[in-house]
Amino acid sequence: MSSARPTLRITRRYRFSAGHVLRREAWSEERNRAVYGRCANPNGHGHGYGLEVTLRGEPDPETGQLLPPARLDRVVEDRVLRVLDHRLLNRDVAAFEKQVPTAENIARFVWRALAGRLAPAALDRIRLVETDNNSVEYRGELEED
Amino acid sequence: MSSARPTLRITRRYRFSAGHVLRREAWSEERNRAVYGRCANPNGHGHGYGLEVTLRGEPDPETGQLLPPARLDRVVEDRVLRVLDHRLLNRDVAAFEKQVPTAENIARFVWRALAGRLAPAALDRIRLVETDNNSVEYRGELEED
Amino acid sequence: MSSARPTLRITRRYRFSAGHVLRREAWSEERNRAVYGRCANPNGHGHGYGLEVTLRGEPDPETGQLLPPARLDRVVEDRVLRVLDHRLLNRDVAAFEKQVPTAENIARFVWRALAGRLAPAALDRIRLVETDNNSVEYRGELEED
Amino acid sequence: MSSARPTLRITRRYRFSAGHVLRREAWSEERNRAVYGRCANPNGHGHGYGLEVTLRGEPDPETGQLLPPARLDRVVEDRVLRVLDHRLLNRDVAAFEKQVPTAENIARFVWRALAGRLAPAALDRIRLVETDNNSVEYRGELEED
Amino acid sequence: MSSARPTLRITRRYRFSAGHVLRREAWSEERNRAVYGRCANPNGHGHGYGLEVTLRGEPDPETGQLLPPARLDRVVEDRVLRVLDHRLLNRDVAAFEKQVPTAENIARFVWRALAGRLAPAALDRIRLVETDNNSVEYRGELEED
Amino acid sequence: MSSARPTLRITRRYRFSAGHVLRREAWSEERNRAVYGRCANPNGHGHGYGLEVTLRGEPDPETGQLLPPARLDRVVEDRVLRVLDHRLLNRDVAAFEKQVPTAENIARFVWRALAGRLAPAALDRIRLVETDNNSVEYRGELEED
Repeated sequence: MSSARPTLRITRRYRFSAGHVLRREAWSEERNRAVYGRCANPNGHGHGYGLEVTLRGEPDPETGQLLPPARLDRVVEDRVLRVLDHRLLNRDVAAFEKQVPTAENIARFVWRALAGRLAPAALDRIRLVETDNNSVEYRGELEED
Repeated sequence: MSSARPTLRITRRYRFSAGHVLRREAWSEERNRAVYGRCANPNGHGHGYGLEVTLRGEPDPETGQLLPPARLDRVVEDRVLRVLDHRLLNRDVAAFEKQVPTAENIARFVWRALAGRLAPAALDRIRLVETDNNSVEYRGELEED
Repeated sequence: MSSARPTLRITRRYRFSAGHVLRREAWSEERNRAVYGRCANPNGHGHGYGLEVTLRGEPDPETGQLLPPARLDRVVEDRVLRVLDHRLLNRDVAAFEKQVPTAENIARFVWRALAGRLAPAALDRIRLVETDNNSVEYRGELEED
Repeated sequence: MSSARPTLRITRRYRFSAGHVLRREAWSEERNRAVYGRCANPNGHGHGYGLEVTLRGEPDPETGQLLPPARLDRVVEDRVLRVLDHRLLNRDVAAFEKQVPTAENIARFVWRALAGRLAPAALDRIRLVETDNNSVEYRGELEED
Repeated sequence: MSSARPTLRITRRYRFSAGHVLRREAWSEERNRAVYGRCANPNGHGHGYGLEVTLRGEPDPETGQLLPPARLDRVVEDRVLRVLDHRLLNRDVAAFEKQVPTAENIARFVWRALAGRLAPAALDRIRLVETDNNSVEYRGELEED
Repeated sequence: MSSARPTLRITRRYRFSAGHVLRREAWSEERNRAVYGRCANPNGHGHGYGLEVTLRGEPDPETGQLLPPARLDRVVEDRVLRVLDHRLLNRDVAAFEKQVPTAENIARFVWRALAGRLAPAALDRIRLVETDNNSVEYRGELEED
């Protein structure tokens, strides 16, 4: 409950719209319904996802910023939003051809897409907000900061 | 700017998740992209829609309520949510086989599904919230109240 | 759908916490449950109410304001918040001894407490937000503006 | 309370950051404090304004849209955001050199900047959200629709 | 600031309405007012509480979910909402007969009601949102995960 | 991932309006634009900041509260809001005469203004919300609790 040094985190929020189907083709219709309920409807439904990206590190002593916001925006746009936004995740995104695009799996996908690309800031956590009442937070192998 | 009698309105908010494609098959790919942008991606994307249903009328002098909330909930569930929730609107809902499921058209669909079914309250307006930054309000032929 | 002159409205939002019971003593337990459901529990429950007060009128040409915000705040504090905040409405507020404190009746109570006290602005409407999913809007006899 | 034809409105929300000072140079310090309180601090303070633009009209029967969203975005960007965003309104915007940039006056400024430029849609209303608890709605001379 | 393995958390939000009184019968009226202010009004007031339940663990490799949402919903409904919703906490809930139902104590009550019942997920934290401006977060004895 | 004892945190949210300029006088106009974009406009712009103060500790066994809310409010008012609210940070606040008032630096300023003044509670973290999409969290040298 005590810490050797101060910690600074910044969080920026993004949004994307995507369709998904929670369904495993290897399972029967009954099993899919039992596990995923209405989310198993084969044509898919969708969400307006909120995506919060949190970085950790020291502010640059001159600029007073942890990372220029425009740089983070560019990396998120290139590596995440361009891939997921306005897509049916199951069919349009290679990573979800074999893996069901649950919120848990999407959050881990975003972590892996961003980790290691934001130096000198460290990626701290990803929060994916699927609905007002449902969100997921993921921290992968933490980078040194 | 003056009114013969007081006006009372109640609004209840519902949520549903749905996928849609903004695309007309009769048009070329180019024209679809020019009009609908990324929303024309053929596999669809989705939203967590907010739906606000507003009624107008007099409170019952005994109960002090315009309409029992449970009754409105039941009608919205039966006539709207059961039809739209967790669906790909273009393929799973007959009304959108020929009509593009824009927010404008979905709002009008909801109005028609509910109008005339909530007496003694009058349906006043439908608001469909597609994203944090984008909503539609529809009032059809107003019922007498 | 056209109007002789421009219309300006300002809205300020207030909050208060109150308990209420939806229950008529003249009714049987069964009837109370049938009409009000769990809201009929005799010891009451509560809400953090949002209260939006909307005024209509012309901005003062010198100050550029419809009404000094501090003046509206004072009237709402004196006439409404002081009476309703941190109260059990059924027992602590005379107006609700005979009238069930539904959102509809509370909104009308607020209108009557404020109407005619905000000149030169006209009271335009009261919106009472009971929960995220449930609100009431009331316009009483409109004042001239 | 009845209407000859249905009404459709769309609302899009924008954001801008701006500084302002509520202060009239012709007045004494005392009078400025009495009218505007802390908002009269001469170096200014600021807000993250929300701006909601509402249009009214008929959806295009082919596209199902009242106006292509990208077209509204472009007009708002060119006529409003480019002028107000990241500015100190009193010094950087000609319209507010003589007029105090209250929320009321900013809303009217936005109306005049947009009216008549969005055909075939009619501009219906402007809502300027200054803080969570304070907003202004303006409707100017209504255009025919 | 580094971690041996990735961490996944899911959060689901619930709502309940309840009344409470912050008051100790053993104290004088003066002392109750000094400590609890208006919250000591003896008939109680209320809140629309938000309750966020956060779990921690590994997603099931087949389903891609940490826990089926329906299972969490059922446990929260049975153990928490059924007990607290639409109640006056001081009189209707045994746990608060001797303990003042502050937000701090309610959060701890919820932790104890849920801990150990959500395997293979571990209960990570409880957040109780009393008003827009006031919340409490509680982590009890952490379970192994 | 396990903890010797339970942890309780309370968070209270405050708001203030302030103007700021992100600009270093020692730099050329070009460099300021490259680093801070439109935020470098010399007359400043502004934000309605949200400020969340989180404390950690044990609830008092008698009152059931971590700290009387009125006491925290008073300290935040005296040490932070009185200094920052309705100010142009660069010119009106000594701490920002040499340091650029980025969100990162403001959050650290607030930590230092509050740390050590809230015993027996420990200051846990400061969150400064600059816009809906942009926030900063700061934990300084943690106090013992």
